[in-house]
Amino acid sequence: MSKLRISQRGAEMPESPIRKLVPYAEAAKARGVKVYHLNIGQPDIETPPSILKAVANTHLRVLEYSHSAGNESYRKKLVQYYKRNKIDVTPEEILITTGGSEAILFGFMACLDAGDEVIIPEPFYANYNGFAVEAGVRVIPITSSIDNGFALPPVKDFEKLITPKTKAIIICNPNNPTGYLYSREEMETIKEIILKHNLYLFSDEAYREFCYEGSHFSAMQLEGVQENVILMDTISKRYSACGARIGALVTRNQLVLQTVLKLAQARLSPPGLAQILGEAATDLPANYFDATRAEYKRRRDILVKRLNAMEGVFCPNPGGAFYAMAKLPVDDAEKFCQWLLEDFSYKGQTLMMAPAPGFYATKGLGSNEVRLAYVLNTEDIENAMDCLAIALKQYANR
Amino acid sequence: MSKLRISQRGAEMPESPIRKLVPYAEAAKARGVKVYHLNIGQPDIETPPSILKAVANTHLRVLEYSHSAGNESYRKKLVQYYKRNKIDVTPEEILITTGGSEAILFGFMACLDAGDEVIIPEPFYANYNGFAVEAGVRVIPITSSIDNGFALPPVKDFEKLITPKTKAIIICNPNNPTGYLYSREEMETIKEIILKHNLYLFSDEAYREFCYEGSHFSAMQLEGVQENVILMDTISKRYSACGARIGALVTRNQLVLQTVLKLAQARLSPPGLAQILGEAATDLPANYFDATRAEYKRRRDILVKRLNAMEGVFCPNPGGAFYAMAKLPVDDAEKFCQWLLEDFSYKGQTLMMAPAPGFYATKGLGSNEVRLAYVLNTEDIENAMDCLAIALKQYANR
Repeated sequence: MSKLRISQRGAEMPESPIRKLVPYAEAAKARGVKVYHLNIGQPDIETPPSILKAVANTHLRVLEYSHSAGNESYRKKLVQYYKRNKIDVTPEEILITTGGSEAILFGFMACLDAGDEVIIPEPFYANYNGFAVEAGVRVIPITSSIDNGFALPPVKDFEKLITPKTKAIIICNPNNPTGYLYSREEMETIKEIILKHNLYLFSDEAYREFCYEGSHFSAMQLEGVQENVILMDTISKRYSACGARIGALVTRNQLVLQTVLKLAQARLSPPGLAQILGEAATDLPANYFDATRAEYKRRRDILVKRLNAMEGVFCPNPGGAFYAMAKLPVDDAEKFCQWLLEDFSYKGQTLMMAPAPGFYATKGLGSNEVRLAYVLNTEDIENAMDCLAIALKQYANR
Repeated sequence: MSKLRISQRGAEMPESPIRKLVPYAEAAKARGVKVYHLNIGQPDIETPPSILKAVANTHLRVLEYSHSAGNESYRKKLVQYYKRNKIDVTPEEILITTGGSEAILFGFMACLDAGDEVIIPEPFYANYNGFAVEAGVRVIPITSSIDNGFALPPVKDFEKLITPKTKAIIICNPNNPTGYLYSREEMETIKEIILKHNLYLFSDEAYREFCYEGSHFSAMQLEGVQENVILMDTISKRYSACGARIGALVTRNQLVLQTVLKLAQARLSPPGLAQILGEAATDLPANYFDATRAEYKRRRDILVKRLNAMEGVFCPNPGGAFYAMAKLPVDDAEKFCQWLLEDFSYKGQTLMMAPAPGFYATKGLGSNEVRLAYVLNTEDIENAMDCLAIALKQYANR
């Protein structure tokens, strides 16, 4: 009798590329080295105390299932939030999900079948790969380049990749991992492509508020594509509430909404306590985000300036999110990042970055690039950059 | 250009069978009729105030992502919980999920591929169908009968259904919707089947503590099948915390654990606030459940006695969970349940039940059966039974 086997799908599930280096970071810490974590998108910004207090102050007799689409009171308040962001939707067009993650999974499951193709500008958020494997969907990367700051690839590049199996394009705006902020013109270009080829546009706008150069233009603001656009949203970064696991899938496509509701009913309801927190967040003052944005902009400015001052380093100025991609004078960023943790320290300190190959689907790309998340205070960023500058010299001469 | 289409999978997703009647219940309420809800498994029992207080008293600066497998402190405490329930596992063999729902989905995704078959005694928890559609898995029902209280079907019935595509059996114990409590002997029978045919056993034990006749024998207590058994667990019913969305997948199969961890990493982490609540629940006194169990037993006894006292009604005594299935002297339970809401009232009251066909995969079965969830206090159950007794007479003479 053959041994029990896991599924092919399970075998194909990618490991988190960011976590590969974790054992080396742990070993460094065990040796007493301080590690600056620029590798993950876990903000250090305080979760607004008022929204945690809203949970604490709720008096529930029974923590019941909520509506599968999320509490109506919350969805009504989100309508106001979206209105402030120039997105007009009704409560019925919003479905609360368990983080942005579930919004992505539901979008894939509702719109794509096994064997269907989805085009994604690379480098991209690595977990799209996992959800694609779960849904049996093929990810088709379209390469963007660090040389122009990861701007939208030309239309002809999209045209080359579109087949009868192509069903959707994913745009993450502002982008993780590149920090690129797509312009209104670029969004209009994408609109032409999805209209011409009858595609869904999955728009991941987790970092909507994190824009430092110009303002955000949402896919939901595009006209004439209300059937095509599916917004995948989350409060994780917005309110530094990653652990809450509250997101939303928003679309004006009624058939997709009905289908997603069936997926939502199968899992009964999104987290209840966290919905209270999410709802309270919609009551934060309009200027709540100003301080956060100013802080991130300060960090970005220091990080980008410091990186570009290092010999052989190139870091395009990211317009949004809290990530920067940098080209380093090394031939293998994975080895270099491991070396930083295993063999290097400066004043008892080192830094951890995410090697870029984990964000590319095309093998061999990004081998001399890293992603840096500026989720540390400016002093820590300066210290981390001190380490990196010295490390690059040592690495070249080793 | 063709219009945008949803996925085949999305089209196949079943609607919640329980929710079909909701509009009729809402209309009845709008007419001023009081509706006793025996249709859904939402307990009315108070969520232990101490576990809600644990959340309120937690002082977090940042609500961060947790470990993808759940907080280690929680998993360590769950080891003690399982030990008290005669299940020996390590923290590494427990993965915290977003409700029992996600444990089911992860189990399917990790172990089964599209086209694989899973055998489930019917009637069964309807949402297995939804997760099966999401994973592309075929549900093969094996029929159990109300006449023997929904005991495990004979081995020869299983043998007839097993094909090279069969990869797993699901047992829900105690059972939703039947309330049947599988005996140790029946569990040993299942063990022989899964060993002989090299199958996974997915064991859904959401109602472990709800046993009124004899004690619970977990699939995790079976010997010699540590690679086969995957426990799907949840705190939803146990602590009347359905809205928390905290469950667990537990297995000693290391490859399955590694695979499920990859699925867990893709969605980052389970809900953070609710993990605090779940962890606090492991500290409830050992006798916490005694009062709850006693209350449910009282309700069951009244419900079953009242049902069997009605002419033409048969309700086997359920050994566990908080559901009872009853055969009614009607030809179409769906129509009758709708009639109860649309056309009937007694002293301004009526009741809502779940028609059984939604729990059967075989078309035509259960047409004269209903599921009653005894999640109301005894007085309300008595009132609901008064309504049902009168309704059945009126329905026969209408």
